[in-house]
Amino acid sequence: MFRVFCLGNTDSLYLQKLPNGRDERMCERTAAKLDETFMARAIELARRGEGKTAPNPLVGAILVKNGCVIGEGWHECFGQAHAEVNVIRNAKKNHKDPSGSTLYVNLEPCCHYGKTPPCTELIIKSGIIRVVIGIMDPNPLVAGRGTEALRRAGITVASGVLEEDCRRLNEIFIHFITTKRPFVTIKAAVSLDGKTAAYTGASKWITGEHSRREVQLLRNSHTAVMVGVNTVLADDPELTCRMPGGRSPRKIILDSHLRIPKTSKIMTGLGSSPGSPLEKPSCKDEQTILACSEDADTRTAKELEALGAMVLRCKSKEGRVDLDDLMNQLGALGIDSILLEGGGTVNAAAFSQGIVNKLLLHMAPKILGGASAKTFVEGLGVPSPDCAQQFRIQDVGLYGEDIRITAYPSEATS
Amino acid sequence: MFRVFCLGNTDSLYLQKLPNGRDERMCERTAAKLDETFMARAIELARRGEGKTAPNPLVGAILVKNGCVIGEGWHECFGQAHAEVNVIRNAKKNHKDPSGSTLYVNLEPCCHYGKTPPCTELIIKSGIIRVVIGIMDPNPLVAGRGTEALRRAGITVASGVLEEDCRRLNEIFIHFITTKRPFVTIKAAVSLDGKTAAYTGASKWITGEHSRREVQLLRNSHTAVMVGVNTVLADDPELTCRMPGGRSPRKIILDSHLRIPKTSKIMTGLGSSPGSPLEKPSCKDEQTILACSEDADTRTAKELEALGAMVLRCKSKEGRVDLDDLMNQLGALGIDSILLEGGGTVNAAAFSQGIVNKLLLHMAPKILGGASAKTFVEGLGVPSPDCAQQFRIQDVGLYGEDIRITAYPSEATS
Repeated sequence: MFRVFCLGNTDSLYLQKLPNGRDERMCERTAAKLDETFMARAIELARRGEGKTAPNPLVGAILVKNGCVIGEGWHECFGQAHAEVNVIRNAKKNHKDPSGSTLYVNLEPCCHYGKTPPCTELIIKSGIIRVVIGIMDPNPLVAGRGTEALRRAGITVASGVLEEDCRRLNEIFIHFITTKRPFVTIKAAVSLDGKTAAYTGASKWITGEHSRREVQLLRNSHTAVMVGVNTVLADDPELTCRMPGGRSPRKIILDSHLRIPKTSKIMTGLGSSPGSPLEKPSCKDEQTILACSEDADTRTAKELEALGAMVLRCKSKEGRVDLDDLMNQLGALGIDSILLEGGGTVNAAAFSQGIVNKLLLHMAPKILGGASAKTFVEGLGVPSPDCAQQFRIQDVGLYGEDIRITAYPSEATS
Repeated sequence: MFRVFCLGNTDSLYLQKLPNGRDERMCERTAAKLDETFMARAIELARRGEGKTAPNPLVGAILVKNGCVIGEGWHECFGQAHAEVNVIRNAKKNHKDPSGSTLYVNLEPCCHYGKTPPCTELIIKSGIIRVVIGIMDPNPLVAGRGTEALRRAGITVASGVLEEDCRRLNEIFIHFITTKRPFVTIKAAVSLDGKTAAYTGASKWITGEHSRREVQLLRNSHTAVMVGVNTVLADDPELTCRMPGGRSPRKIILDSHLRIPKTSKIMTGLGSSPGSPLEKPSCKDEQTILACSEDADTRTAKELEALGAMVLRCKSKEGRVDLDDLMNQLGALGIDSILLEGGGTVNAAAFSQGIVNKLLLHMAPKILGGASAKTFVEGLGVPSPDCAQQFRIQDVGLYGEDIRITAYPSEATS
């Protein structure tokens, strides 16, 4: 149980454990701070669903009554109960009555029948008197309807609490539902002087353990991982998530001319018998995608398909796969997010074709040097700093021994 | 006037203005926090001497009596009064009696006759009862003597308060007095992808105004600025400090074969009549230095000297100036600090020859791309990440719109 009080004219909120909960009159600002504190907890809970809810959003919820948290819940897995259902169920399991409580939830509750009944009905039935929402439903067709339904039932509704944080939490969901294209995150590991490898090509390891562990988290939280075929030729990677309990992402290889070796780990790891990849329906969502250009060899394509891969023919752009067309096709396949772990050439194409939604840079505190050592954005480049693509730094700081930078394109749609 | 109190079991120290000063019994930890608070102020004052005290250290001091600051002072300019003299003088000017007070000073007070009489004598005479010191004198020959003299006189002495901050404040002084070589800071402006220019060579401007203004501050606080001759050939820079009230650094050009154009701004700006650069004694400390290798053309050297430059012949290393030898020669000339604003080739040489003491990186939130665009460390580079020079990140964060990284070589001597 928590007691909340405001100390003098400071901006800080102090939470102190008390032997029993007591009602306190709170000034308005303190109440707002309190709403934020509880919403932050809802966000924390929502994150527990990472990697398991796509293409659904991440949603967490808590119930607060007389200043005490009486229940917590989150959307745990695609197809299963919504966060609102879980939080009410958990409160009751703990012999707490939701009636008269406040519900904190990072996303507007739904008011339509989908795989589960509308959450608004349940909220109304349970006697909740106030609902605090992070962001409204990003789908313009239903945004505001849940709120409206709650208000009609006499429930007080506040929205926009920790709005920016709630938006970031579901940036993938918001982007996908509004554009029908995957949200693309470029991940790169570089030295202080911007190199992704020494001049010899050696790149193991530039960044520290902490950063390398985050790649596993990212593979778990993204539906797909994408690399260029040159990465396959050079490193023969598995691109799996090696995190305990993690989910390996679907693999997408940019391979304009289908040069991928049939003996590569990506191809041999497909584990499907020739000719029958689509016979197991669960397999379809895991099928490795080879994105090639329209003029790629048909026989090679058939051979690769026979080995279990999905060959996706895309428009060509300067002899390579048109990434814009590819994003449309991947979106149509239901792929909502891509972790792009490409080299400098693939990254350069992604930046210049404007498909990048987020940049995550791990920068090791070391100098590799080398005029011929590769950087994480190669290609031709822009002719002058004026023409450079601008980013907005969302976060920068130490992450283990490395520096970690999170940035978004300045004119990002999400 | 300040009253200091400790709030419950929190770690924070709260300073609150009171109508009049009152003695408060303080717990030990609060007293330590208080010492740090006052030392931080001494450091702040010390910084006011930046660019004016070299080769002397930066020193700030405050006098505290009954919890109130009764005087502040700092070493303002080389050859002038020490901080301790100024703080006592300022207290008296304000009709405050230093007797019974505590002196906070970031560097151990001197106990020898130099350009000014020993500060220890003045401290003892003024009736100060406690002296709090940041770091001891870095000169091993005199370290501890000032403290000893104070203690013999019955003064309580505490040292090591905000030690790390005090060491950073005088990193140049400490390095120079212990190695007799200049402290070298590499400054670079790069894009998020590590480029110092677009593939065309265009580099104006990569970083924002905030970062570019800091370069002026750095030129003011370093005795010399150093670039390679290629920078002179490409940009024809002035390398002056354009900060109001700032001091322009001495210029050092790495020019193995004396290729610097006589018409460059560096050469034409020397402003000395041919043949007489050394006739004005004040001119010597400002004379531009051209560092060339032993086999550089003698006639060219004479011509450049006649125009007012100092030509410094250095050992050769792979056909270029041996930077190690150059550092020894510059140290002998009394140059305590160098801001290295070189390109990728010069920086690579500086890193590989181990002369870099500090790295200051301004990273703009933009992507330039380009396989042939230059990075801030070129050269051959190391063959694998294992062999890379390691750094310790001292500070990283947003600086205006850019990211600013301060790093030190892991095995730095300073």
